Amino acid sequence: MFDHIAVVGATGAVGTLIRQLLESRRLPHQTIRFLASARSVGKELEFAGKRVVVEELRPESFEGVELAISSTPDEVAGELVPQAVERGCVVIDESAYFRMDPNVPLVIPEVNPEALDSHRGIIASPNCSTTQMVQALKPLHDAGRVRRVVVSTYQATSGAGVGGTRDLLGGTRAKLEGKPYEYEEFAYPIAFNCIPQIGRPKQHGYTSEEMKMTWETQKILGDQSIQVSATCVRVPVSNCHSEVILVETERKISVEEARELFAATPGLQVVDDLENKVYPMPLTGDGHDETFIGRIREDLTCPNGLIFWCVSDNLRKGAATNAVQIAELLLAKAG
Amino acid sequence: MFDHIAVVGATGAVGTLIRQLLESRRLPHQTIRFLASARSVGKELEFAGKRVVVEELRPESFEGVELAISSTPDEVAGELVPQAVERGCVVIDESAYFRMDPNVPLVIPEVNPEALDSHRGIIASPNCSTTQMVQALKPLHDAGRVRRVVVSTYQATSGAGVGGTRDLLGGTRAKLEGKPYEYEEFAYPIAFNCIPQIGRPKQHGYTSEEMKMTWETQKILGDQSIQVSATCVRVPVSNCHSEVILVETERKISVEEARELFAATPGLQVVDDLENKVYPMPLTGDGHDETFIGRIREDLTCPNGLIFWCVSDNLRKGAATNAVQIAELLLAKAG
Repeated sequence: MFDHIAVVGATGAVGTLIRQLLESRRLPHQTIRFLASARSVGKELEFAGKRVVVEELRPESFEGVELAISSTPDEVAGELVPQAVERGCVVIDESAYFRMDPNVPLVIPEVNPEALDSHRGIIASPNCSTTQMVQALKPLHDAGRVRRVVVSTYQATSGAGVGGTRDLLGGTRAKLEGKPYEYEEFAYPIAFNCIPQIGRPKQHGYTSEEMKMTWETQKILGDQSIQVSATCVRVPVSNCHSEVILVETERKISVEEARELFAATPGLQVVDDLENKVYPMPLTGDGHDETFIGRIREDLTCPNGLIFWCVSDNLRKGAATNAVQIAELLLAKAG
Repeated sequence: MFDHIAVVGATGAVGTLIRQLLESRRLPHQTIRFLASARSVGKELEFAGKRVVVEELRPESFEGVELAISSTPDEVAGELVPQAVERGCVVIDESAYFRMDPNVPLVIPEVNPEALDSHRGIIASPNCSTTQMVQALKPLHDAGRVRRVVVSTYQATSGAGVGGTRDLLGGTRAKLEGKPYEYEEFAYPIAFNCIPQIGRPKQHGYTSEEMKMTWETQKILGDQSIQVSATCVRVPVSNCHSEVILVETERKISVEEARELFAATPGLQVVDDLENKVYPMPLTGDGHDETFIGRIREDLTCPNGLIFWCVSDNLRKGAATNAVQIAELLLAKAG
């Protein structure tokens, strides 16, 4: 079906994982191209026992490519993705650029696979912090209609790309040694600190990252009446985002029912036994494709509220895994 | 008034700060004793240019002591504080042991100084994560009646005492060097990780730390109808707790009004200009006695909701500073 595929931004943090996933999950194809910005061109990368030379990302690179999974900054996506589509390529795009475009489906395969059918060449993969939350909201929404969500995030530095992790490790090492460190990705030191801003100021005092969690949730669940307030915070964790999620449903869902709903949902895993110190953590979620849920309990402040803790590998299910799953779903739908 | 004073748990993380604050704020006294567990006995500590030898903490140590500021584990407080009171000593206790005792006032001097008047020898200082939140809630409650609070915490390792900080620094250093590290204070590695449990399981799936935030808030604000749901999370930050606080009031309070109310409240400092990347952080709150508030905005999910970010030095205002302020207030009230 897609004989000729490409990975765009192939040398980035997410692109690297996409390459690994395409290899390990054996997405069928004839040829594969790795595209990246000029500075990575010429690098040789191993893929399925062969060497693939990184090519420069240009509009012409998409000639003959039928499917591309693209992970680039928004402005690069905005320029190049339409040019790829013009050349007949279907693009699964990790950037935020097209996510809210009404002509572009925003897809989490376990949540809204049906949205894929209406694509016109571009399929968007949601923001990492949105994906794991919406995975958890979906079964609650189906069972009891989600009305209101308040979320606080504990986001890993890997969400800021390779440079984010370099900043965390380099900055922490320098701090321990009493040496200075020049941060590249963060406005303030992230070592042993929390930074309550991710993205740029957007509206009503919320950041772009926070509004993504509002708008993308509404779009993916297909319900504009779901209210979401997010506070997104960067923490000195290298990988895996954690979230405290308060959800109010129209119909009351008990803790037991929520646990059963989560457990029955593909892609979710319940890790919840406080008495025995069992709950998900970034350290235990790292490297996994599932989204983990624990600390499930009733909100003490309203009758139909639930609060839980949600951990997911932001580079995997939050980005690379979701995109590769979309590709697999496209293939499956094509029969 | 209190000629003879004592610091109990004088060599701990909080006790050390209490000693510094008593010295720098020049709390009037004739003699001062430093009491601690057996392993610190005999240590010489400098205080106001003199050397004070640490004495063993025993019931008899309180003979002749008129005022003690005590920072010990709960079970030590439960046993020794009443014995100190029997000997005529007034005890300002940092432990959780007496906080919910109806005969013991639970005091934040800026919030409920009047509670002090009813003390019978013991005055409790609230839990660190509660204090900074209640400082922020107080002006909102006075202006618009707080009905509902949902809080997510980002708590520093110093809250687990000297061993918590040792674990964070030692564990992080070991992780960077690829070496093993045996954690003492935490059930799981805290280096580059988040642990969604502080305290022991208490009730309804909440931990003791989380229920403290519910019950202590109701007691300090003198209003059992205030609902509080907390999720307490340990993050790899050495000092200063951060909190995302959602508050719903009976009367709507605008962002502008909230900012003015906070700014007019002694002990609070507004640090809030997202456009210019201005907000409080653990790194900037460290070493200060104020509680800092930023990211103030309307909750998008309910008409009377506000969300903000609150940072405070948990060893200072969350513990030592508050206790010393209680001592100063006692002195002032005694005239």
